[in-house]
Amino acid sequence: MTGVGRGAGGAIRQRERSALALAVEVSRGALGASTPNPPVGAIVLDPAGDIVGRGATEPAGGRHAEAVALDAAGDRARGGTLVVTLEPCDHHGRTGPCTERARAAGVSRVVYALGDTTPDAAGGAETLRRAGIDVVTADDDEIVAVADGPLRAWRHRVRAGRPLVTWKYAATLDGRVTAADGTSRWITGEQARRHVHARRQEVDVVVVGSGTAAADDPSLTARLDDGSPAPRQPLRAVMGLTAVPAGAAVRGTDGRFRHLATRDPAGALAGLGDVNHVVIEGGPRLAGAFLAAGLVDEVDAYLAPLVVGDGRAAVSGAGVDTLAAAHGFEIRETTRLGADLHLRLTAHHPPTRGQH
Amino acid sequence: MTGVGRGAGGAIRQRERSALALAVEVSRGALGASTPNPPVGAIVLDPAGDIVGRGATEPAGGRHAEAVALDAAGDRARGGTLVVTLEPCDHHGRTGPCTERARAAGVSRVVYALGDTTPDAAGGAETLRRAGIDVVTADDDEIVAVADGPLRAWRHRVRAGRPLVTWKYAATLDGRVTAADGTSRWITGEQARRHVHARRQEVDVVVVGSGTAAADDPSLTARLDDGSPAPRQPLRAVMGLTAVPAGAAVRGTDGRFRHLATRDPAGALAGLGDVNHVVIEGGPRLAGAFLAAGLVDEVDAYLAPLVVGDGRAAVSGAGVDTLAAAHGFEIRETTRLGADLHLRLTAHHPPTRGQH
Repeated sequence: MTGVGRGAGGAIRQRERSALALAVEVSRGALGASTPNPPVGAIVLDPAGDIVGRGATEPAGGRHAEAVALDAAGDRARGGTLVVTLEPCDHHGRTGPCTERARAAGVSRVVYALGDTTPDAAGGAETLRRAGIDVVTADDDEIVAVADGPLRAWRHRVRAGRPLVTWKYAATLDGRVTAADGTSRWITGEQARRHVHARRQEVDVVVVGSGTAAADDPSLTARLDDGSPAPRQPLRAVMGLTAVPAGAAVRGTDGRFRHLATRDPAGALAGLGDVNHVVIEGGPRLAGAFLAAGLVDEVDAYLAPLVVGDGRAAVSGAGVDTLAAAHGFEIRETTRLGADLHLRLTAHHPPTRGQH
Repeated sequence: MTGVGRGAGGAIRQRERSALALAVEVSRGALGASTPNPPVGAIVLDPAGDIVGRGATEPAGGRHAEAVALDAAGDRARGGTLVVTLEPCDHHGRTGPCTERARAAGVSRVVYALGDTTPDAAGGAETLRRAGIDVVTADDDEIVAVADGPLRAWRHRVRAGRPLVTWKYAATLDGRVTAADGTSRWITGEQARRHVHARRQEVDVVVVGSGTAAADDPSLTARLDDGSPAPRQPLRAVMGLTAVPAGAAVRGTDGRFRHLATRDPAGALAGLGDVNHVVIEGGPRLAGAFLAAGLVDEVDAYLAPLVVGDGRAAVSGAGVDTLAAAHGFEIRETTRLGADLHLRLTAHHPPTRGQH
């Protein structure tokens, strides 16, 4: 969005601030499901400030978050406020524009966090204002928090022209993903493994190298705490020139498998199309190739408090020959998961643009 | 100490609790200086509960913490309370027994955290009680906190018969201590390096392997933030059969250098005598040898948010061939130091006893 009119409807109110925080939580339900649409959350407040509707983006072809929340609110939206994590869209796509939906519902005020700069959807705030609706944006701190939250992968794709890439690995304190004899189960404990499975439900694609697929025969499915498959599954991809055998676990039976027959990380991403979030899960050479290509935007590191001293390192061939050329990240979160430690890091480099 | 009479003088009072916390802080000043004596802290409260004296153990041959604090308090100690992190000693060593010192000062109450079970010094609480002084111990939580604080290395030596051994290393996220070309300066940033130098002032001995001494020519001194030498310096030791050249930086000019001409970690520790705390600073083979011998009690890990993909690993030859045999630790603290992360971990294994 542009700076025009930002804040013209006055400052965000305390109840709207709380509603925005709730909208962010609600939007998490759309992670990994709304692609290629952004995972948006929306809350409707009635004129008294009470919550009368909430919603998250439905899977592609379904309703946007605003429509879900306004449908839930019905007549109670009249004279009320629509609070949404992303500027309402102004275009006639598979669903009508959200600006028109808000006007028809009779809301008198719209509060949003991030501006939508995509060419098709932009201009929503201006359209709402012309319709006589107060339009208010969140404060800078809230905007930054939303940008780093559930919308970050979509936002990355829109800006960089390629999906957000997270490199995920689980290693010992001394950086090994196996012991000397190749054993790797289980480096991390149950809480860390549950965390991995919860994250898989929130992303679009999980990728492993063909070497890892052949050696470990991973299923790459997202599983619930009881071991059963989660209702939402990422696309499972194997990257590399080696064929994936018919009986490989990664193929599964649900059709959500892709073989990316390339050694080029940028080519692999391009081949995945308009997805928001891709996770690289191993092995060391695949991680090295994406790092060397400047295509790792985030790291999800699960560190176990173990030392093995020998075994496979977490990454190899990252294109670094001297310390000054190391790939640099910033630690954003550190979380204890049982005996283990989870670190979320983001890259220092500006995102490398994709090929499409 | 035994359970006899514990708490017979009543429960610890709020002012005494605060004084005990202060005594722990005061005792930090004796770390690395009091050896082989324990780094104790003492506070004297007057009958109104005001602080009238404080002290920490002086270097060997000097006064114990109780004497320092009681000397500072003078007559104001009469009828007051002595609060101390360790049970006052009851033996005539180089200084008189602290029990006698407390009686002569006229305190009517003594509060302490850890019991002293060393054969020579034990029995202080009982002696004080016979002298008509109220003796009170801290609550369990406070006792545990003190045991894990400044007294932990001394306590470890008393119980295990050998010093506490901390393995300290600085590595990239992928567990490397150098890049592919051998460069290692600087993996971590300024705040982490300051932290390392502050810790060196609190320990007795810093050890490197002869390979690291030859390759890096480290000085191993503790330096202040401005780069000048700290007033308190650990003993600098090089372990290994290779001679240390006359011009090596580690030799310094202050006589605080030792060559430990052995490859056996237990033998090296025995050769250091009655020291409380030894830090192993590298390289990977030295760390591996201490780990394999079960002689790493704590880990100080400085993790830089960098990935290099190739280079020397932080540890090698740790005697682990399969994951189930990994050396297990527990993460006790995680602290951000600028861009880096410091982890303090403690070993799962029961401490291996020394040879002396």
